[in-house]
Amino acid sequence: MQTTQIRLTARPVGEPKDSDVETATVDLPELAEGEVLLRTIYLSLDPYMRGRMSAAKSYAKPVELGDVMEGGTVCEVLESRSDRRAVGDIVLAYTGWQTHGVAQARHTRRLDPAEAPVSTALGVLGMPGFTAYAGLLEIGRPAEGETVVVAAATGPVGSAVGQIARLKGARAVGIAGGPEKCRLLVEEYGFDAAIDHRSESFADDLAAATPDGIDVYFENVAGPVGEAALRRMNTYGRVPVCGLVANYNATEAPHSDFTFPGFFSNVLVKSLTVRGFIQDEFTRTHHEAFLAEMARWVGDGSVRHREDVVDGLENALEAFRGLLTGRNLGKLLVRVGDDPTA
Amino acid sequence: MQTTQIRLTARPVGEPKDSDVETATVDLPELAEGEVLLRTIYLSLDPYMRGRMSAAKSYAKPVELGDVMEGGTVCEVLESRSDRRAVGDIVLAYTGWQTHGVAQARHTRRLDPAEAPVSTALGVLGMPGFTAYAGLLEIGRPAEGETVVVAAATGPVGSAVGQIARLKGARAVGIAGGPEKCRLLVEEYGFDAAIDHRSESFADDLAAATPDGIDVYFENVAGPVGEAALRRMNTYGRVPVCGLVANYNATEAPHSDFTFPGFFSNVLVKSLTVRGFIQDEFTRTHHEAFLAEMARWVGDGSVRHREDVVDGLENALEAFRGLLTGRNLGKLLVRVGDDPTA
Repeated sequence: MQTTQIRLTARPVGEPKDSDVETATVDLPELAEGEVLLRTIYLSLDPYMRGRMSAAKSYAKPVELGDVMEGGTVCEVLESRSDRRAVGDIVLAYTGWQTHGVAQARHTRRLDPAEAPVSTALGVLGMPGFTAYAGLLEIGRPAEGETVVVAAATGPVGSAVGQIARLKGARAVGIAGGPEKCRLLVEEYGFDAAIDHRSESFADDLAAATPDGIDVYFENVAGPVGEAALRRMNTYGRVPVCGLVANYNATEAPHSDFTFPGFFSNVLVKSLTVRGFIQDEFTRTHHEAFLAEMARWVGDGSVRHREDVVDGLENALEAFRGLLTGRNLGKLLVRVGDDPTA
Repeated sequence: MQTTQIRLTARPVGEPKDSDVETATVDLPELAEGEVLLRTIYLSLDPYMRGRMSAAKSYAKPVELGDVMEGGTVCEVLESRSDRRAVGDIVLAYTGWQTHGVAQARHTRRLDPAEAPVSTALGVLGMPGFTAYAGLLEIGRPAEGETVVVAAATGPVGSAVGQIARLKGARAVGIAGGPEKCRLLVEEYGFDAAIDHRSESFADDLAAATPDGIDVYFENVAGPVGEAALRRMNTYGRVPVCGLVANYNATEAPHSDFTFPGFFSNVLVKSLTVRGFIQDEFTRTHHEAFLAEMARWVGDGSVRHREDVVDGLENALEAFRGLLTGRNLGKLLVRVGDDPTA
């Protein structure tokens, strides 16, 4: 069996260019005992992938030059040498930017198409949804009546953060780019207020939408948007930090109106909690509860979600570039192959 | 009854000058029902007082110009119009930089000289000790075998942090200025290692003393010392922030090798927890346990402490200047009047 894969061939400087990757078709190895042969249906595109393209030390190792780009996938099992998975099973895997792959069966999770569309395992019921759930509930801990602010709020993390905040009785204020996204936040996701960060009156609008200050700022963008929110934190405010997308393509040190000592002074004066996290820290303790609770919320309509599906692996890089600049509306997926459950 | 008091008359620029205060002797008002007349025995000098001298907004209101400087005191009750306190009682109060004062009896705490020297209510068994206890145990949460680093380590907060860390099975590394203080850390307080921040090899020495990185950095100084420690934080590290003494006299924005975005990126990549706090946040939940546990530790010698006692209210400001530059060795107190329990 062959696979067509997108490999990283150069460390991008700034926005990833077409010349930073190559497409190659190669033979897959024979299956070993315990392995499955997978056909990719959906590839998830997520901001963290920009970090994997860089050589800089981070929480995970970078993708080596010449290796296939990493990524979560929903796949169909074509062959199995494991009792755990049968041919025809649909599974969550981590086979990356390619049409086919081989994985340890025990590293896959079987999905039940009757429970939820299988693509949601990459979005609202997957890593982005879990990032929102664990970060908001374990670090943000919004109390009834408190104000929760999240940016990139129409994204799969942000939209879940706002909706879960409301389910917990908090006020949800979303920040997004442009009037269309802001309308979506209020009308579809039920946010209490939406602020357009492209507006010249952004800071004033944020102040008007958070008259009692901000108790939880869920940080996933950084830059001027994040700093505007951090300025409005209340005493004992919490700042879960799960991403800094605005800086991911930066080629020089990002500008900031904050100095480090100034920020630290603010942390002290306001007794703030600032907590970086990667969702897998909470997998063992919270993932089971997440799957049950979130599936219920999605099922009864109290958490809504959107998918932005791009067809064809060959369009993955262009879609990924758009992700880093906010071009997508909803969870960004590449449909690499037919979805037999759709 | 008259009181001699030190009043703030100007907002200090940089180090507080003699001309920023005045000494005045005035009549105290007659006692109202529920009040006590107090004679000051000990006045506590603490870094937070520098903040009270400034007009800048902080977690507490500044001292108004013309008002007596605030501060914790240990006092003898000279008259009482309350059933709660009797003449001759020794109490913890907050009457500030003066020889006598009037307070609500219910705002004082009676001290038992048979249990511990009454001066300790301003140090190891008082606010500094509680800052160390609550910040380390509730925010730092050191696990057995982890490395805890604290600066200003011979101070009343730092020395308690290190000793409590060791009681919890962690490795304690103290940072202090000069070889005498470093010797004290190891020989008297039992720190595992002590680093002199005045040494040219400070950063290398800190690295050598923390071969497994730092799990808890208890921040009470800021500046280059704090930044050197923050550079060595491990994944899931915790940073309780209770003071930034190095900046308190600053007349311009302090220099930093860290940018705000760089620091935030570090918080994300290492899943750090940075948490500002003022000890009174934990009073309701932890103060009773603190008093019991710390008194036991002090009693059985597992937590040691030192006091640096300056005689005479007229020497308070000069002693306070020394506090901000690390001149004292141990908890700094002014003996304002005779201690009848000594």
